[in-house]
Amino acid sequence: MDAPAYTARELAERFSLGLHGDADVRVSGVGTLAKAGPGQLAFLANPKYRAQLAESHAGVVVMREEDAAAHAGTALIARDPYSAFAKMSALFEPKPVREPGIHALAVVDPSAQVSADAHIGPFVSIGARSRVEAGAMIGPGCVIGEDCVVGEGCELIARVTLVTRVRLGRRVLIHPGAVLGADGFGLAMEAGRWLKVPQLGGVSIGDDCEIGANTCIDRGAIEDTVLEEDVRLDNQIQIGHNVHIGAHSAMAGCSAAAGSARIGRYCLIGGGAGVLGHLEVCDKVTITAMSLVTSSIREPGEYSSGTPLMDNRSWRKNAARFKQLDAIARRTRARGGDGDEA
Amino acid sequence: MDAPAYTARELAERFSLGLHGDADVRVSGVGTLAKAGPGQLAFLANPKYRAQLAESHAGVVVMREEDAAAHAGTALIARDPYSAFAKMSALFEPKPVREPGIHALAVVDPSAQVSADAHIGPFVSIGARSRVEAGAMIGPGCVIGEDCVVGEGCELIARVTLVTRVRLGRRVLIHPGAVLGADGFGLAMEAGRWLKVPQLGGVSIGDDCEIGANTCIDRGAIEDTVLEEDVRLDNQIQIGHNVHIGAHSAMAGCSAAAGSARIGRYCLIGGGAGVLGHLEVCDKVTITAMSLVTSSIREPGEYSSGTPLMDNRSWRKNAARFKQLDAIARRTRARGGDGDEA
Amino acid sequence: MDAPAYTARELAERFSLGLHGDADVRVSGVGTLAKAGPGQLAFLANPKYRAQLAESHAGVVVMREEDAAAHAGTALIARDPYSAFAKMSALFEPKPVREPGIHALAVVDPSAQVSADAHIGPFVSIGARSRVEAGAMIGPGCVIGEDCVVGEGCELIARVTLVTRVRLGRRVLIHPGAVLGADGFGLAMEAGRWLKVPQLGGVSIGDDCEIGANTCIDRGAIEDTVLEEDVRLDNQIQIGHNVHIGAHSAMAGCSAAAGSARIGRYCLIGGGAGVLGHLEVCDKVTITAMSLVTSSIREPGEYSSGTPLMDNRSWRKNAARFKQLDAIARRTRARGGDGDEA
Repeated sequence: MDAPAYTARELAERFSLGLHGDADVRVSGVGTLAKAGPGQLAFLANPKYRAQLAESHAGVVVMREEDAAAHAGTALIARDPYSAFAKMSALFEPKPVREPGIHALAVVDPSAQVSADAHIGPFVSIGARSRVEAGAMIGPGCVIGEDCVVGEGCELIARVTLVTRVRLGRRVLIHPGAVLGADGFGLAMEAGRWLKVPQLGGVSIGDDCEIGANTCIDRGAIEDTVLEEDVRLDNQIQIGHNVHIGAHSAMAGCSAAAGSARIGRYCLIGGGAGVLGHLEVCDKVTITAMSLVTSSIREPGEYSSGTPLMDNRSWRKNAARFKQLDAIARRTRARGGDGDEA
Repeated sequence: MDAPAYTARELAERFSLGLHGDADVRVSGVGTLAKAGPGQLAFLANPKYRAQLAESHAGVVVMREEDAAAHAGTALIARDPYSAFAKMSALFEPKPVREPGIHALAVVDPSAQVSADAHIGPFVSIGARSRVEAGAMIGPGCVIGEDCVVGEGCELIARVTLVTRVRLGRRVLIHPGAVLGADGFGLAMEAGRWLKVPQLGGVSIGDDCEIGANTCIDRGAIEDTVLEEDVRLDNQIQIGHNVHIGAHSAMAGCSAAAGSARIGRYCLIGGGAGVLGHLEVCDKVTITAMSLVTSSIREPGEYSSGTPLMDNRSWRKNAARFKQLDAIARRTRARGGDGDEA
Repeated sequence: MDAPAYTARELAERFSLGLHGDADVRVSGVGTLAKAGPGQLAFLANPKYRAQLAESHAGVVVMREEDAAAHAGTALIARDPYSAFAKMSALFEPKPVREPGIHALAVVDPSAQVSADAHIGPFVSIGARSRVEAGAMIGPGCVIGEDCVVGEGCELIARVTLVTRVRLGRRVLIHPGAVLGADGFGLAMEAGRWLKVPQLGGVSIGDDCEIGANTCIDRGAIEDTVLEEDVRLDNQIQIGHNVHIGAHSAMAGCSAAAGSARIGRYCLIGGGAGVLGHLEVCDKVTITAMSLVTSSIREPGEYSSGTPLMDNRSWRKNAARFKQLDAIARRTRARGGDGDEA
């Protein structure tokens, strides 16, 4: 596979970027500013890496206008160098060829519909009444259960499971090991034993969502679990039944939203953070890593819980005092008389 | 697939429920109180939704006697409306048909025993000396290793792995991506390198347990990792080697129990909570979400750790003070002289 | 399958151990000190179990010299009885036979190279330009994508995915459900929508690493995500793109390292702990369970965050005061005048 190559001029024209320096320099890949060679494209977005620019051997660097003045090499000029780099680097991404058609070692239920130009890889099974639309790519080992829809241009990389009643919009990208549409965790205690509550809803995923590796999205109990369009979930995430996530929100690895939580649009949920069940988080809320949301949030902004990291010896001393915090507070209040500051 | 339909009278008789209103109303599915239509069954369990009852278009609503008096429509009367609803809604759950037999694209070791009425789906492999009992359902892509037992009526939905020496009781339900019986994390440091400790035990799962999607239960080092009957594990859970979980306990998503932890009966472990290794948690303990159990618990009750969520600016100010908590406590003590309140 | 059996004398010679008592005692398996029978080998490493020794029915017990004096039965003497036990117990581990060759129900791209003595199980797919080296074992349901290398003697137990550009060193052991080489979580916001940043790097795993069940290691954005040799990852771990983990470090279940974090050699990361992105953790750092590393660590040692577990009622009172901690601190300062202790 020969890597494609582009001159700085071609890149400037294709992506509507400014250009300083030698327009004929040719790049065939990307690199970091520190390590890129003469045949590679790099970027400078964060001013703290400006010092690396002078030392860089990158053939072409995309940067802001103000950084280009002092640069001797070839520069592409962008208002947002990181986005421009992202788009250009897609040119160099080796995309495996996936021929249309159903692999001989795939099993498709007679009642399922598969578009003629979809790709169905080996060891895939597709259940009753499911539909795979045009241009969809279903990689090796995926399991599509009953009554699912895989929309136009979706990509299920490998070993993805859609259990039942999972409807994907267009261009949804799902990474290996993700499980959508498993039973929600619905239980009632009756006479000392658990009674399972049937999960009759489904999962509805909007256009352009991305679901990370080994992430789980349970199907709803009565109505659907819903991700609106352009929601981005990292790996190892748990989304309980009947959760609703607004468009353009993103959740980092190992975070979780419990049953019936409602997360707004343009929210950012940090790694390992959790949202308890039945809560509402309004639009444009950021939750920092490993924080726990225990009541609804009605104002946009950044929220946190937790304590700072310390050496273990100091931590032990301070953490032990946490058990006395109410007593300490009452003691200072009693003597102070400066009112309730809560 | 035509959905089955039932009259209110049929439901009342079948589930021994009281009945008010028109006994001939017919329902063929379920809905929420707010959104159900005339052909659907809904429920009212939590008094805070009582106001929705007057507005509901549900054909039949299951509720407590005291809520039915003021209700104009058809009501089924139950002491526990949620449990009654759960049982009735199972009538409307579309259950995929799984024919008995071994799929042509499954691989079964000659020394394995598979009951004639078990269902073995495509892309399943079953290893040496394993046994699949009557009525068991093993969905697509499951891997059953050596010396495993899948008991009567178990359901492994899809892509479940039983690595080795995993013994499932009857009616165990396992969701996709779960891994039971992988090596426990046993290591010894020797001369600056890790030495792997062989994991010679197995996993023993009691009757009626449920294991969530992408949950892991490691096999024991010498003896088995054990779940007693009716234990319910949500998704993304990690159970270390030689953990023992008592009957009827439930763990929510992303929680974990480290090696040799012993959790009692009727415990509830919240989402993202953890229990450190070798600890004992007695019966009837509830651990709230994202709490960490760092010493054994000998009294039933509810336990928590962590700090409340705040706007990030306030949190930064307060969290920074956590590092001074011991000094603050000593300062108030020195001046107060009111003894040790710990 | 008959279990192998060894006399105490054979074990002493093979593992260079001291021997007290009857050298002809024969063991064919292992057990705990408390439950082992006359045909089993047990160990005593932790002095707190010394009392069990007198009661033990184990045929042979490996222990330290000082514990052997008072022991009536057969003892093997080791400086580190746990390591010695680990090595001996490997003798009793039933290892499934994996014949060399490619299973008839595996799919191997014509451009891939598979060593003649590698084992490729059923339902495995191997993509373009990938290579599987001598003695490697690839269990059922694994997916190897494009441009991957599985080094000599690697074991991929079952249902492992190497997405693309994943290079494993020698003797790497990977448990079921692990996903290596999925897209890193790279996004840029542009005009109110997420723009995906192509992930052009790969994953490089050193010799003798172990990767737990359902653990994820994303591939790098430009350069590789790297694990040096002998790194041990437990289950359910998330490793972001471009993370670098030094040799001989170990991470416990459900822990995570966010993008571009750099963890040193001989580090121990506790269960559920997290390291934020772009931070550096120096060699020989221990992070306790469920702690969050929010800034770089430059000194070896043990670090922690979090608060102690309490009964929920006490916790509510104390946790509420955390919101006032800055005010409390200022109050004690104002009155105290004993300077800044931070």
